[in-house]
Amino acid sequence: MQAIQSYITKNKDRFLNELINLLKIPSISADSAYKNDVFKAAEVIRSSLENAGCDHVEICETDGYPIVYGEKIIDKNLPTVLVYGHYDVQPPDPLDLWNSPPFEPVIQKTDIHPEGAIFARGASDDKGQVYMHVKALEYMTTHNELPCNVKFMIEGEEEVGSVNLGKFVASNKEKLTNDVILISDTGMIAKGIPSITTGLRGLSYVEVEVTGPNRDLHSGLYGGAVANPINILAKMIASLHDENNHITIPGFYDKVENLSDEERAEMAKAPFSLDDYKKALDIEAVYGEKGYTTNERNSIRPTLDVNGIWGGYTGEGAKTVIASKAYAKISMRLVPHQDWEEITELFKTHFERIAPAGVKVKVTPHHGGQGYVTPTNFNGYKAAAKAYEKTFGQVPIPERSGGSIPIVALFEKELDSKTILMGFGLDSDAIHSPNEHFGIGNYLKGIETIPWFYKYYSEMKG
Amino acid sequence: MQAIQSYITKNKDRFLNELINLLKIPSISADSAYKNDVFKAAEVIRSSLENAGCDHVEICETDGYPIVYGEKIIDKNLPTVLVYGHYDVQPPDPLDLWNSPPFEPVIQKTDIHPEGAIFARGASDDKGQVYMHVKALEYMTTHNELPCNVKFMIEGEEEVGSVNLGKFVASNKEKLTNDVILISDTGMIAKGIPSITTGLRGLSYVEVEVTGPNRDLHSGLYGGAVANPINILAKMIASLHDENNHITIPGFYDKVENLSDEERAEMAKAPFSLDDYKKALDIEAVYGEKGYTTNERNSIRPTLDVNGIWGGYTGEGAKTVIASKAYAKISMRLVPHQDWEEITELFKTHFERIAPAGVKVKVTPHHGGQGYVTPTNFNGYKAAAKAYEKTFGQVPIPERSGGSIPIVALFEKELDSKTILMGFGLDSDAIHSPNEHFGIGNYLKGIETIPWFYKYYSEMKG
Repeated sequence: MQAIQSYITKNKDRFLNELINLLKIPSISADSAYKNDVFKAAEVIRSSLENAGCDHVEICETDGYPIVYGEKIIDKNLPTVLVYGHYDVQPPDPLDLWNSPPFEPVIQKTDIHPEGAIFARGASDDKGQVYMHVKALEYMTTHNELPCNVKFMIEGEEEVGSVNLGKFVASNKEKLTNDVILISDTGMIAKGIPSITTGLRGLSYVEVEVTGPNRDLHSGLYGGAVANPINILAKMIASLHDENNHITIPGFYDKVENLSDEERAEMAKAPFSLDDYKKALDIEAVYGEKGYTTNERNSIRPTLDVNGIWGGYTGEGAKTVIASKAYAKISMRLVPHQDWEEITELFKTHFERIAPAGVKVKVTPHHGGQGYVTPTNFNGYKAAAKAYEKTFGQVPIPERSGGSIPIVALFEKELDSKTILMGFGLDSDAIHSPNEHFGIGNYLKGIETIPWFYKYYSEMKG
Repeated sequence: MQAIQSYITKNKDRFLNELINLLKIPSISADSAYKNDVFKAAEVIRSSLENAGCDHVEICETDGYPIVYGEKIIDKNLPTVLVYGHYDVQPPDPLDLWNSPPFEPVIQKTDIHPEGAIFARGASDDKGQVYMHVKALEYMTTHNELPCNVKFMIEGEEEVGSVNLGKFVASNKEKLTNDVILISDTGMIAKGIPSITTGLRGLSYVEVEVTGPNRDLHSGLYGGAVANPINILAKMIASLHDENNHITIPGFYDKVENLSDEERAEMAKAPFSLDDYKKALDIEAVYGEKGYTTNERNSIRPTLDVNGIWGGYTGEGAKTVIASKAYAKISMRLVPHQDWEEITELFKTHFERIAPAGVKVKVTPHHGGQGYVTPTNFNGYKAAAKAYEKTFGQVPIPERSGGSIPIVALFEKELDSKTILMGFGLDSDAIHSPNEHFGIGNYLKGIETIPWFYKYYSEMKG
């Protein structure tokens, strides 16, 4: 793998331009208006895999967006790495907060990325990180240094709950057989400080609708005399947390895994400055569940957040109306052992139960997934750790993430293999936010590190 | 006035078509996109007053939308009636709930209006009711039966708080001198059951903005660790009412006028069926302040309602985001003696005080106005009651309304004259709602009743 650094230096501009072309496609899976663009992004992934040396590359149709599959089998007796990622992206709104159009990538220097970062929706989540694997494969195939078999499975519905991937995996177990799954869809602790995500939170995402009167009403003539769906929705949402910010849904915490003091002490060693954290977000205080630190609140504890709310008159000026309906999108992040379908059911039952007479409530589950924990004592983890040490010069820190990649738990269930979350993004990448970006240094470091993982993993397995 | 009925019969179609032309103009004062239409509506009012026999009709410019003024002075020694109304309308949204386009008036029969009703935004509030006065004047001038002087003042900013009318009135006291003010911008108890509105609620309308982190965040990476502006806004809104639905803002009730048991018993005599009320709104239960009936809750008691709320992702599908900002439009209906500016200040202070660390709160007052009570023992009220008795065959019921016409209190202060609220609308007109309509019978009955008011009032004053 010695030539990897010089190969990157030689091809840096091409690596950037190819990614930029992919980022120009608004492949927003949540918004059907972008249907054609999502398919277009799949096509670009397909050809990029072929160019990188994959065989049997195919676009596998599903009931939703297709899954791009490709493989390079050099010897049935060698271990097989399955690379998973997604080519769909989050909606870019609010658009007015972007400094440059989300699908017109630009390279800008930042304090954290003096070498420059690519600003575009999907730069870090997940097109940029998927493309690291494509370029790493290109290096290994062109230099004849691929030490094992590799399979790629890149989907287009991750941002909407991977609705069809589960079925695809279940019905293609043979094709997807592997020894370890490699995913780059997470972050590292800080630039230059490598970390491997060893835990993911589960997710339950629901939409609620509160209906009061059968039509919008004049707030003067009816105000105070009928249940106002917005006021009621606010009351119901507020009641979901108690004064200690514990979630009040009966049974919600029953299966939550409580970490030992030792484990919490270990976590607390990760470098973290609360002042920098508050400064970066421009907040005067953090806020969350009593009895836990910020890093515990966003990783080992379950949460409930309203992701969107709307109802009544939201236009310019004033309208004295009592709306007929009010809506909210609510998501719960879950920790290992909490079952997302069970939690969704608990939420539904509770939310319907607390609705006062005078309103009707409808709860619609959107999607969800289980949490996951990666052991640190198997070959996959050890190989990844060694690869990071090789390219960063230091041992990576195992880290629990607050994010969710629901499919990881499913992989273990269906394919019986562990997943290594080899993320090269940073918290400051602003994924899911305006001005998402991916540091060029992180991008190239990923391309450099991945081949070493293949090498070490093959050696350990062999 | 004997010829009024036959005149209406003869000119009915023209009276309807003229109103329909006025209703076709989307004069939405709250939305600057309709600026030209609001001015256009003013122009139509101007010409209609001239055609009805007004002298010195003029479009008086203001810092906002113009006020149309016109007068017919037949004898300085005779009493003068000042007619007030507005030609602007509420925004029509939600558009998808309209059975026909809001600015393409159609006539449809309904159970309450077997003779037909005009469906259009502004049909009842207030273009239709303003036009009754124009046509009533036309009758009196063409038949030489105008028994006193009349002045018209029709504004274009009532739905946005009459922001410039106050200044206009204050600086035109001479021009606007009158003995009684006549307004048709309210309703009557039921079709065929006349009533005169003797009380109006005041209004304080504010917009609130809650800011958490300086950018939208990934709810997985930050969920549970920072204050979510939507959850916080919900909590703050919920806390504005206690378990008895009393408003919790300190000092809010200090100046509220408490009615005597006698007065409440008198109110309770008004015909009202709670079952019909619930059936009409398709609700299983009413909801409101403990210790008061539905008719008390929406008339003699102050209220606080959220008229609109928005924040985060409200599009199709799911987005796991923590929004940087959340917003709400909140209005409070006030009763006589509550000062709207004082209440607005109390709200602002309280709302800012209850904001937890970790968010910033901004409260922006939109507009407001004082409540009002009309005495039933002066000539204006007596003349109106007699006019209703003449055309409906029964004595009208004095009624407190929950609505607000902020300008009425100002009229009394600046012009030192009382206002008669001679409304011909019905609760079922759906003003401020989709499918607003005005019964043709109500429209024509208004045209028939108004001249009798002029006659009786002149006789009583004379």
